[in-house]
Formats: sequence, structure tokens, C-alpha cells
Amino acid sequence: MSTVNQAANADRYAEFLALHRAGAPLVLPNAWDHASAAALVERGFPAIGTTSLGVAIAAGKPDGVGGTREETLRLGVGIARLPVPVSVDVEGGFAERPQDVAALGAELARAGVAGINLEDGRADGTLTDADHHVAVIAAIKEAAPTLFVNARTDTYWAGGPSASLDETVRRIRAYRAAGADGVFVPGVQDEAVIETLVGATDAPLNILYSPTGLSRAHLARLGVRRISTGSLLFRVAVRSAVDLAWAVAHDGEATAGEVPTYAQAQAMSEVYWAD
Amino acid sequence: MSTVNQAANADRYAEFLALHRAGAPLVLPNAWDHASAAALVERGFPAIGTTSLGVAIAAGKPDGVGGTREETLRLGVGIARLPVPVSVDVEGGFAERPQDVAALGAELARAGVAGINLEDGRADGTLTDADHHVAVIAAIKEAAPTLFVNARTDTYWAGGPSASLDETVRRIRAYRAAGADGVFVPGVQDEAVIETLVGATDAPLNILYSPTGLSRAHLARLGVRRISTGSLLFRVAVRSAVDLAWAVAHDGEATAGEVPTYAQAQAMSEVYWAD
Repeated sequence: MSTVNQAANADRYAEFLALHRAGAPLVLPNAWDHASAAALVERGFPAIGTTSLGVAIAAGKPDGVGGTREETLRLGVGIARLPVPVSVDVEGGFAERPQDVAALGAELARAGVAGINLEDGRADGTLTDADHHVAVIAAIKEAAPTLFVNARTDTYWAGGPSASLDETVRRIRAYRAAGADGVFVPGVQDEAVIETLVGATDAPLNILYSPTGLSRAHLARLGVRRISTGSLLFRVAVRSAVDLAWAVAHDGEATAGEVPTYAQAQAMSEVYWAD
Repeated sequence: MSTVNQAANADRYAEFLALHRAGAPLVLPNAWDHASAAALVERGFPAIGTTSLGVAIAAGKPDGVGGTREETLRLGVGIARLPVPVSVDVEGGFAERPQDVAALGAELARAGVAGINLEDGRADGTLTDADHHVAVIAAIKEAAPTLFVNARTDTYWAGGPSASLDETVRRIRAYRAAGADGVFVPGVQDEAVIETLVGATDAPLNILYSPTGLSRAHLARLGVRRISTGSLLFRVAVRSAVDLAWAVAHDGEATAGEVPTYAQAQAMSEVYWAD
């Protein structure tokens, strides 16, 4: 496997890394297509990410089952043309073998992508074996040393019995030791848990923003260095469009709809992939 | 060229045609991806269209230059699974030869698409020769008799010296005689012009909704039978997402951005296709 030319990507990598500041975290908005990515950059965001839910259901496919490698790669290569660092959500890497995931990472890095998000959650709600995930991260960093690997652990994401702080700490430390540049624990809003996670690793901690959770300022005080919006922007965008259409159709008598949850957004798109 | 089985599509065609009622026009919201289409149906719209601007710049391509045949076809085939009639914006048909445009129409009809929008405006701001456009419409209707062809004339769209009422009437009558099921004159908000156009043909007249123009109720009184939203929903969706991201990043101190115009939306995406 060819090693990506470090010189070509080192500047962008360094720029992206430097945005993860304690006390002044990077707010990374997640785009779902080329237009939303361009609009976020136009507005002034210093870096942008992508949302796998948005990419998937925009394409009429389910999220989290590894079926959108092509769409993810196409979007990543396209938005790498934007004048800010971009980080691409690659779900679990769209492959099992470390070398295959590493090849995807290297291809994105060659296109100018600054980073990726790689999750250890599986479609069936279980977690990938930690040792295997460590091997995947190590393979990516070997193939693309200047690709910022944000290692996401879904210990809290499912919200069920797997929400173990000990297991989370164990995993983020192992991922960091394997070369991860940052760690991401979505689903956490508890102050004490966040403080423990910040103290458990020297890697920047990424928390998923929730409209009903902690504010940017609050997360900044806790030492969080990246705040991402996940699928929220995408879901709000669709809701806004539908609300406006309804207002047009009813001469302004619009009732604002609820922002669909992740599960609702998936469910209303099932018509495309259901048998 | 195979003729599409009329029986397979006749019901959907009839259902779509019946929604174009004088006094109670069809408000046709325009989706840009599978998710927005599904969400509009979920909200209760009886039919949906697509927007070529949204489809194009979502894919990182310019609108109106015929470069999105693949994306348009993929979206059309996908949203045909929705339980309402769908109409696909095919720009000028992505081809010059009538038989090539007819093949696209037949493919969409076979997939279950109820209708298409076909424009006579060209990328350079001029209009296609009317006789040629007539030949294209006739070829589509021969290949797919139960595909609702909404013939759009861009006489008013450019807003320049081509905005001739006589030429518009001449074109919509010619397109109707060639088999068009409906006619569409975007860019018109003048009551007298709309009344003249309604009286000039027995085909349902489609007007493009404008937030600064006439309301649904007003257009209904004038006899308009279809009101579409064009790229508006798409542009508002992107704006809403960016506004929310900005609010998160600035602890709620959000300044709502302006909804980008068509030209601004294209311009901010030029990074993708500029050399």
C-alpha cells in the first residue's frame, strides 16, 4: 500500500489539529451534500464535517450499515476542494479488514480531506471488538499519517447496558495509543462523565451537540475540544423546507413540524430500501 | 423504441392529472434528494416535484447545463417508490435529439414516475427553437403516453427582452398541440399576464411561487392549476441548517442569514466545478 505523501497534507492536518483548543472548542457543523458544505464555509466556519445519516438517506439508503461507501467517497473528494479542512464520517469504514479501511483513508487523504470519523458501533447495536478497531486505526495512520482520525466509541450511543464509563475510558485510551488524533463519545451529556473522559486522555475529546443538552460554552468549560452537530443540521434543514411548503400550500397557516429524530428520519426513508 | 405500457402507468397519470384543479391548484413542493421527498410525502403533500438546482448543486455540479442526467435519473427512479405521483425536473432533457429525450422519459415512466418538467431555456440564456421543442415533446408523448409532460417556456424567466407575451402564448399553444399535458411559465407574477395565459390554452397553467409574489389563494382565483416552489425549499433548507450551526457556535447569538438567491446558491458552489 502506498503511503500518502505527508508533505502534501501536513499543512491541512496541522491547521485542523490546531482548531481543537481547550477552552475554545472547534464547533464542527456536519454537512450532508456539496451545497450544505459550501454554504457552511461561506458563512465562516473554519472547518466542516459530514453526517453519515444525511449522506445515506439523502441517497435513499439506510445509515450505519456500510452501504454508502461510494456516496461518502464522492462527497469527501468533492468537498476537499473547499478552502477549509474537512472531516468525513466513514461510519465503520465500509469494510472489515484494516487494510481496506486504510485504503479508503488514504484515498480521502490524497484528495485533500483533513480527517475522518471512524466508529466502533455496528449496525446491530453491538460494538466492534476493541482490539480489531485498534488494528484498523493503526492501519489508517500508517497509510495516511496526516489524516486526522477521530475515533468514535459508541459505548454511550446505544444508551443501553453498554453505557459503561470504564469501558469507554479503556477504549478511548486504546484508540489513542493506536494513533487516533481525537476521540469522540456521542450520547454523553453528563458533566462528571465528560470531565472524567477529558482527564482520561490527552487526545481532544469530541462531544455531540444536543439542543436539549449542554451549550458550547458549558462544554468548553469542561475541556471539550470539538463539538459536532451530527445529523441535527440535516434534520432541521428538511423540517424547514417542509414547513415552508406547507405554509405556501395553506396560505401562511403553517404549523411548524417537529424536527424529526434520527430514528424518524430513517423511518420515513424506509420506503426506498424496504422490500 | 419500446412504448411504455400504458396500463401500468395510467392510474398514476390520471391521479396526477386530476390534482390540477381550477380554483384549487396543486401546490407541488420540489424536493432535491430522497430524504426531502420522503419528508414532504410524510407531511401530507398529494404529489411532489424535484428541483434541478437542488439536485445539481447538492451533487457539486452547476444547474441548467445538462450535466446531471445520472443524478436526475437516480433520484427519479428512487422517489417513484413513494406512494404519491412524482414529477421530475429534467431541465432540457439532457440531450438534443428528440429520441434521446424520449428514451429518458420512457425510462422514468417505466420506473413509475408520473410526470416530467421539460424546459426550452438553454444554458446561454437563449431559447430552444420552438419547432425543435415541439418535436421533443411529441417524441416523449409517443414513447410514454401516460407521462405528464409539463412544458416549461423560459420566455419570462431570463427577464430580459425575450419576455414577450405573444411569444409565450405562441409557444405554450404549440407545446400543447404537440401533446404537453401542462404548461409552465416561471418568472411571471403579473395578474393580467397570468389571466391571458390561462385563457390562451386548455392546458393547466403552472406558475412558480415567489415569497414576494402572489399567494396560493390569489393564483387560484386567477385560474392557475399548479403552483411549484422551484429551488426555494432547497435554498431555505440550507439557510436553516447554516443558521442553526451558527447559533450553536455562538451560544445562541444567531443572526438569521438571508435565503440565498438562485444565483448565490450557484455561485457558492462554483468551487466544485471551477478549474
